[in-house]
Amino acid sequence: MTPSSALTDPSDLTALAARLASVESRIAETERRLAAAEDELAILRILGSYSPRVDSGDAEGVAQLWTEDGVYDVDTGRLDGHDGLIEMVRGDAHQGLIAHGCGHVPSLPVVLLDGDTAVATGYTQLVVRSSRPGRYTVLRVTASRWELERRGPVDAPDRGWRVVLRTARAMTDDGEGRQLLARSREG
Amino acid sequence: MTPSSALTDPSDLTALAARLASVESRIAETERRLAAAEDELAILRILGSYSPRVDSGDAEGVAQLWTEDGVYDVDTGRLDGHDGLIEMVRGDAHQGLIAHGCGHVPSLPVVLLDGDTAVATGYTQLVVRSSRPGRYTVLRVTASRWELERRGPVDAPDRGWRVVLRTARAMTDDGEGRQLLARSREG
Amino acid sequence: MTPSSALTDPSDLTALAARLASVESRIAETERRLAAAEDELAILRILGSYSPRVDSGDAEGVAQLWTEDGVYDVDTGRLDGHDGLIEMVRGDAHQGLIAHGCGHVPSLPVVLLDGDTAVATGYTQLVVRSSRPGRYTVLRVTASRWELERRGPVDAPDRGWRVVLRTARAMTDDGEGRQLLARSREG
Repeated sequence: MTPSSALTDPSDLTALAARLASVESRIAETERRLAAAEDELAILRILGSYSPRVDSGDAEGVAQLWTEDGVYDVDTGRLDGHDGLIEMVRGDAHQGLIAHGCGHVPSLPVVLLDGDTAVATGYTQLVVRSSRPGRYTVLRVTASRWELERRGPVDAPDRGWRVVLRTARAMTDDGEGRQLLARSREG
Repeated sequence: MTPSSALTDPSDLTALAARLASVESRIAETERRLAAAEDELAILRILGSYSPRVDSGDAEGVAQLWTEDGVYDVDTGRLDGHDGLIEMVRGDAHQGLIAHGCGHVPSLPVVLLDGDTAVATGYTQLVVRSSRPGRYTVLRVTASRWELERRGPVDAPDRGWRVVLRTARAMTDDGEGRQLLARSREG
Repeated sequence: MTPSSALTDPSDLTALAARLASVESRIAETERRLAAAEDELAILRILGSYSPRVDSGDAEGVAQLWTEDGVYDVDTGRLDGHDGLIEMVRGDAHQGLIAHGCGHVPSLPVVLLDGDTAVATGYTQLVVRSSRPGRYTVLRVTASRWELERRGPVDAPDRGWRVVLRTARAMTDDGEGRQLLARSREG
C-alpha cells in the first residue's frame, strides 16, 4: 500500500458533511414538531388538572393554573388574578357544593396551538348529589374557552403554560354559550 | 510535524460514517413515531371539535370534519356526505335544541391508529336545559365509533384526517350501543 | 492541482465529528422526550379503553388493562387481580346494568408521568336509562385515581403500561372522593 492510497478522499468528507447537514435539519424540524405535541399534552394536563383541584378545595392549586393577572370570566361572576380564584374556591358557595358532593366534570376539549399561545374549547358539567339517595343532578353544562400563554425566558425554571383568560358560559337560551363555542375554530 | 502526520486517517472517516448512518436510522425511526403521536393528537382534535361546532350551529364546520362522501350513521337517521350533515345541523330539531340550550358533551375516547386509518371509540352525552330552572337533563348517552382516514397525496396542502364513518347508538336495552363498544379493541 | 491540495484537512474532520456528537446528543434527548409523550398517550388510551370494555361486558378486555396482581379499590367493593375484575364484569349487578342501558362515561383526566410509573386522576359518570322514556339518570359521579406501571424487560413484546391500583370513590359528603382528587398533584 502506498501512503497516498491510505489518504482520505476529500469528496468522501464532502458527502459526509452533506448527509450531516441533512440530519441536522431533520432533527431541528423534529424538535419543533415534538415541542408542539408536548405543548398540546401540557395544555390537556392543565384542563384536566382544574377539576380535581377545584373539587378538592385546593385553592392555591387552582390559582397556579392561571398567570398572576389571569382572569376567570364566568357568567356567575368575574374572578381576577390568583386572589380572585382563591377567594372563589374558599367561598361559602363553592365550599358548600364540594362538602355536599359534586364533580366539575371536564369533557374532551379541542386544543389549537399557535407558538406561545393556545386556545382550548370544551365543556364542564357540574353534577351534584341529589336529595334522592343514589342520584346526581346536572346543575350546569358550561362551555369554556381557555386562552393560554407561555411566558418568561426560554430557560426559566418556571416557564410553562398558564391560563390567561378562561371564559365560561352555561349553555342556556341566551346564546352566550353558543357564541363561545362558535369561536372554537379560531386560534 | 511531518506532512503525513497531518493527514486524515481514513479509518476515522469510516467510523464517522458509521456513526452518521446510525443517527440517520434513529432520526427516521423518531420521525415515524412522532408522526403517529401527532396523528393521535390530530384525531383527538377532530373528536373534540365536533361538539363545539354542532352546538354552535356551525354546519359547514361540522361537515368539514368528514370526507365529502363521509357518513354519520346514527340511530335517529343516517346522514350522507356534507349535504346530509349540513341539513341536520340546520334542521328544525337541532336548531330547536341548541336555541333552548344544550351540550353534546364528548368523553375521553380511545384512539387506535393504523397508518392512514384510525378508529376512535367514545361516548357523547346530550344534556339539555330542563324545564326546572337551574337543572339539566341527560337525554342521550350515545356510544360512537369514529372511523377516520387520511387521504390525498403526501404533499397536498389539505391532506389530513377526516371522518369516513361515524356510527352512533344510544346505550339502551337493544344492545346496539354495547355491540359498537365491543368493537373498540379492533383497529 | 498538487496532490497535497487534494488531501483532507484533519481539522475539517474534527469539526464534523463535533457536529455529529451534537446531533447524537440531540437525537438521544428527542427520543427520551418523545417516549414520554408516547407514554402519556398510551395512558390516555388505557383510561379511554376501560369504559367501552366494561360497558360492552368485555370481562377479559377489562382485566387485561390491569397487571395480574392489580387492584380496583372502589367504594362498592374491592376487586383483586384479573379474577376479581372478571367476576365483577360477569356479575349480576353489572350485567343487569349494561343490559338495561348505561355508560360509564370517562372525563378528561390529568396524567402525571414519572419514568416507568404514572398516576392519572379523573372522573367517571355512571349514567343509566331512566324509567322515563328518553331520559337518563346520573347514578354516580366517581373520582378515580389510576396508578400505572410499566413492567418487564425493555425488549419484551408485552411490555407496556398496566393499571396496578385504581382507587375510585363517589363524590359524596363523606369526603373520600375529595381526598382522592386532592392527591392529583402528586406523582
